[in-house]
Amino acid sequence: MSKTVVYEVPVTFGDCDPAGIVFFPNFSRWMDASSLNFFVKCGVPPWRELVKTTGIIGTPLLEINTKFSRPAVYGEMLQIHTSVDEWRDKVFVQRHVVKRGDDLICEGTEVRAFCMRVPGDPDRIKAIPVPEDIRVLCS
Amino acid sequence: MSKTVVYEVPVTFGDCDPAGIVFFPNFSRWMDASSLNFFVKCGVPPWRELVKTTGIIGTPLLEINTKFSRPAVYGEMLQIHTSVDEWRDKVFVQRHVVKRGDDLICEGTEVRAFCMRVPGDPDRIKAIPVPEDIRVLCS
Amino acid sequence: MSKTVVYEVPVTFGDCDPAGIVFFPNFSRWMDASSLNFFVKCGVPPWRELVKTTGIIGTPLLEINTKFSRPAVYGEMLQIHTSVDEWRDKVFVQRHVVKRGDDLICEGTEVRAFCMRVPGDPDRIKAIPVPEDIRVLCS
Amino acid sequence: MSKTVVYEVPVTFGDCDPAGIVFFPNFSRWMDASSLNFFVKCGVPPWRELVKTTGIIGTPLLEINTKFSRPAVYGEMLQIHTSVDEWRDKVFVQRHVVKRGDDLICEGTEVRAFCMRVPGDPDRIKAIPVPEDIRVLCS
Repeated sequence: MSKTVVYEVPVTFGDCDPAGIVFFPNFSRWMDASSLNFFVKCGVPPWRELVKTTGIIGTPLLEINTKFSRPAVYGEMLQIHTSVDEWRDKVFVQRHVVKRGDDLICEGTEVRAFCMRVPGDPDRIKAIPVPEDIRVLCS
Repeated sequence: MSKTVVYEVPVTFGDCDPAGIVFFPNFSRWMDASSLNFFVKCGVPPWRELVKTTGIIGTPLLEINTKFSRPAVYGEMLQIHTSVDEWRDKVFVQRHVVKRGDDLICEGTEVRAFCMRVPGDPDRIKAIPVPEDIRVLCS
Repeated sequence: MSKTVVYEVPVTFGDCDPAGIVFFPNFSRWMDASSLNFFVKCGVPPWRELVKTTGIIGTPLLEINTKFSRPAVYGEMLQIHTSVDEWRDKVFVQRHVVKRGDDLICEGTEVRAFCMRVPGDPDRIKAIPVPEDIRVLCS
Repeated sequence: MSKTVVYEVPVTFGDCDPAGIVFFPNFSRWMDASSLNFFVKCGVPPWRELVKTTGIIGTPLLEINTKFSRPAVYGEMLQIHTSVDEWRDKVFVQRHVVKRGDDLICEGTEVRAFCMRVPGDPDRIKAIPVPEDIRVLCS
């Protein structure tokens, strides 16, 4: 049974489009915030700190998949239920279920990898194996 | 053989995150711009006009799926190659291939539906069958 | 002595730029959220409701002025202290002081007007006098 | 007589809010893109390159002031006319006039400083005098 961390997001006027509903890339933005919040709540330092001791700059995306069930409008409060579905050697699958109370708004998975800069070529980044200590903290 | 329309996007400093690469929800934002651009280039009026004659307010998302291959950084120019993979009765599948010249940056599909407001309940929206004239214009 | 309402904002990774600090347009975005939150907390319905009874669609900006004192980074929690400096006949001046605990991050004023759509030409909007009942609720 | 560089921006659906007009923080976002484009067009390398030779990470904002004249809607093309009003010792004032053909949409000034990381404390940044070679290139 994996850990689930809930991240709360207030929908603002500026998050919505001319149709009056949340412009969908904002859901990805919020899922990303909930992804990092998950790690921090599990006891992992923010990337800004972690980079100094481990070189890890974050968990860039390899793939996202989101299904949208209901629109949301500004003034509403959403809850993002975030967990890790699967830890593989080099990547992990994170799941975000976005709800408004009992209503499902959307649900998505992200395939992410822990990454660091390529030594000698700091403009490039590369995936590293999932650090064992982070996996333990978050499982 | 379906139509493909190319939409060009300059990557800006503000599109990038502390890792120095494009913050991934911006790709969804650009794909959405390219989706609308596709319809306009095929001869469909912008939703703002279309709503007056047909009630159509846009093409909200039912599902997105994106695979990320390479990061992009500010100062680069990206090309989004947009087409429709499949027209179904109530939905259609749009494909966006984001390239930097010959390099593949990311590639995604969107399942979208043409929507209008629910008569008598303008705060709600509902999907309608894909309009035949739009399908013809875009195929 | 005017009312002040505090709106709290968590800074996320995606709010920050390649320099690692909040990309400044996000402060305007948060001030806008705090502006609407101020009205709601004072008892004014959200624009979405208000438009049905009064025609008011919101409070578009006529002018903004912001001074930036300190950068903020992701993982921090900011507090926006929002009040109305001045009510004039057709416009009002809202002030937002963005703090991180005791530290001043930035401070801005906005000149806004209550607006409605132009009857007979719904694509255009026009300013209306500040509604007396809203002024009373918020003073 | 100072140089003026024009940067063109297509307004997208997602740039607009439930009132159907551009959500104003996007103008700041576009002015920032136009600010960097101005330097690049004048022959200054992007910050990403410049940081390696000079330590300069960009030109963070000290103050912004924008006046909004007309709303803009999606599907329109805007032109941002960017120049430097004034070079002072430690800061410079950049002006952005946002037009839609002959129509003025908004106009703003930004006070910016060239900044680098504080040696020995890379989490902090500090302003440096305006580099003479950059001032010459851009005047």
